[in-house]
Amino acid sequence: MTSSQTSRGKLYGVGIGPGDPELITLKAYRIIQDADVLCYLCNAEDQTRITGQTHSAGHSQAKSIVKAFIDQRKVPPQELAIAMGYKHDRSDANARYDQAAEQIRIALDQGKDVAFLCEGDPLFFGSYAYLQERLCDQYSCEVIPGISAPQAAGAVAGIPLAMQTENYAVLSGRLDSEALIQQLTNFDNLVIMKAGRARPRIIDALKETGRLEDATYVEYATRDNQRIVYDLNELDNEAGPYFSLFIVTRHSDLRKWS
Amino acid sequence: MTSSQTSRGKLYGVGIGPGDPELITLKAYRIIQDADVLCYLCNAEDQTRITGQTHSAGHSQAKSIVKAFIDQRKVPPQELAIAMGYKHDRSDANARYDQAAEQIRIALDQGKDVAFLCEGDPLFFGSYAYLQERLCDQYSCEVIPGISAPQAAGAVAGIPLAMQTENYAVLSGRLDSEALIQQLTNFDNLVIMKAGRARPRIIDALKETGRLEDATYVEYATRDNQRIVYDLNELDNEAGPYFSLFIVTRHSDLRKWS
Repeated sequence: MTSSQTSRGKLYGVGIGPGDPELITLKAYRIIQDADVLCYLCNAEDQTRITGQTHSAGHSQAKSIVKAFIDQRKVPPQELAIAMGYKHDRSDANARYDQAAEQIRIALDQGKDVAFLCEGDPLFFGSYAYLQERLCDQYSCEVIPGISAPQAAGAVAGIPLAMQTENYAVLSGRLDSEALIQQLTNFDNLVIMKAGRARPRIIDALKETGRLEDATYVEYATRDNQRIVYDLNELDNEAGPYFSLFIVTRHSDLRKWS
Repeated sequence: MTSSQTSRGKLYGVGIGPGDPELITLKAYRIIQDADVLCYLCNAEDQTRITGQTHSAGHSQAKSIVKAFIDQRKVPPQELAIAMGYKHDRSDANARYDQAAEQIRIALDQGKDVAFLCEGDPLFFGSYAYLQERLCDQYSCEVIPGISAPQAAGAVAGIPLAMQTENYAVLSGRLDSEALIQQLTNFDNLVIMKAGRARPRIIDALKETGRLEDATYVEYATRDNQRIVYDLNELDNEAGPYFSLFIVTRHSDLRKWS
């Protein structure tokens, strides 16, 4: 390794969990205190959520989770916000990740350590993977895993996601109905993520496979606006927010508050 | 709620992650500092692992992960060890969980808060679920999620477990070959857990489905004896340790150290 390489900074993909600031790891906390640069996604434009909550352009959900910890720093970090819209298509998003990777590259070349704050777990549907893809062939990278949305939802609803030698699948709400029905038949335990717009279709698939009573619906697990629905007959057959999921399990009889 | 109920203690299922003590959450740390009673599984008999490492009867892997944090306490906790053998069959294990639940019940009735230390995530193949099952209809219970083995393995190997709208499955190494081959064909991303004794069978299934190059093998992620094998042609076709898994993903080209 040449001296120019050893003096380069390091990129950290830091999982900051589902929303409750206390659910970040000790290691994530330490890196948030020490990194020269904190990088995160923020809204490219104003967003009004289905819940009626509005987040203005520039708002970063990731930064807001750990804001209290950033405020504890003796030396404020350099901050690098990557504006990203929900409406951006893949090529649009890729162009923005390209730009962000260039800015991160400059900081790393200056010997600065850069921590990318990633909601949930950086490598489980996390945005960090797009930066790793662009940078980790040339720069030292390290991932700090974080609590993912299914784990948070299981915890707040008190439902074992999987036990013993069972199988477990995580599906996207965008999966077509036929594939959804097939997996609901094949797997004992499933989580269906990003259930927002697909909610009516998912409820139909649960009914068709006789698994409505195995299912629990969770929105915004561990956040202030958390919502848990144990009896899906009480759930409107309408679109829900992006941060919502269904847990479908053979252990629904173990739900402690049902 | 009567006054006798309000004075009861609370049961916490505390995820302590994969082995690196820094990968516990701030909340887990706080509860380890504050709980009246710390409860954990320990070895019922001496164990010699495939690696040659020996753990004597009474050794607790869970306690050893957070020992430094327990030692920081001003008031040492009451400790409650549940002896459990790898060789115990289900009914044997159930009898031991019954006994443990009785002891925990006594502490809760005395108004003591009990924290059960659970490797990985308490509700993701975690032993905590057996205590929740026995106690949470009568006592207040709360789960603190923890970093699970697949997340830890993905992080140390630098492999995205899933991206965008992909699907992801977690399978047991005990699954029969036919089912294993079916899921390796159906799912882009999979983790095959508890791969120890099934290693030769899993390698055969990977070859048969043309996915050997998609697979990475990880033992003891984040622990001192961690081992990562990116090129599975270098992996002996022999049994491995219990704490081993395969990550199979379409993103193997993103493995940063490959």
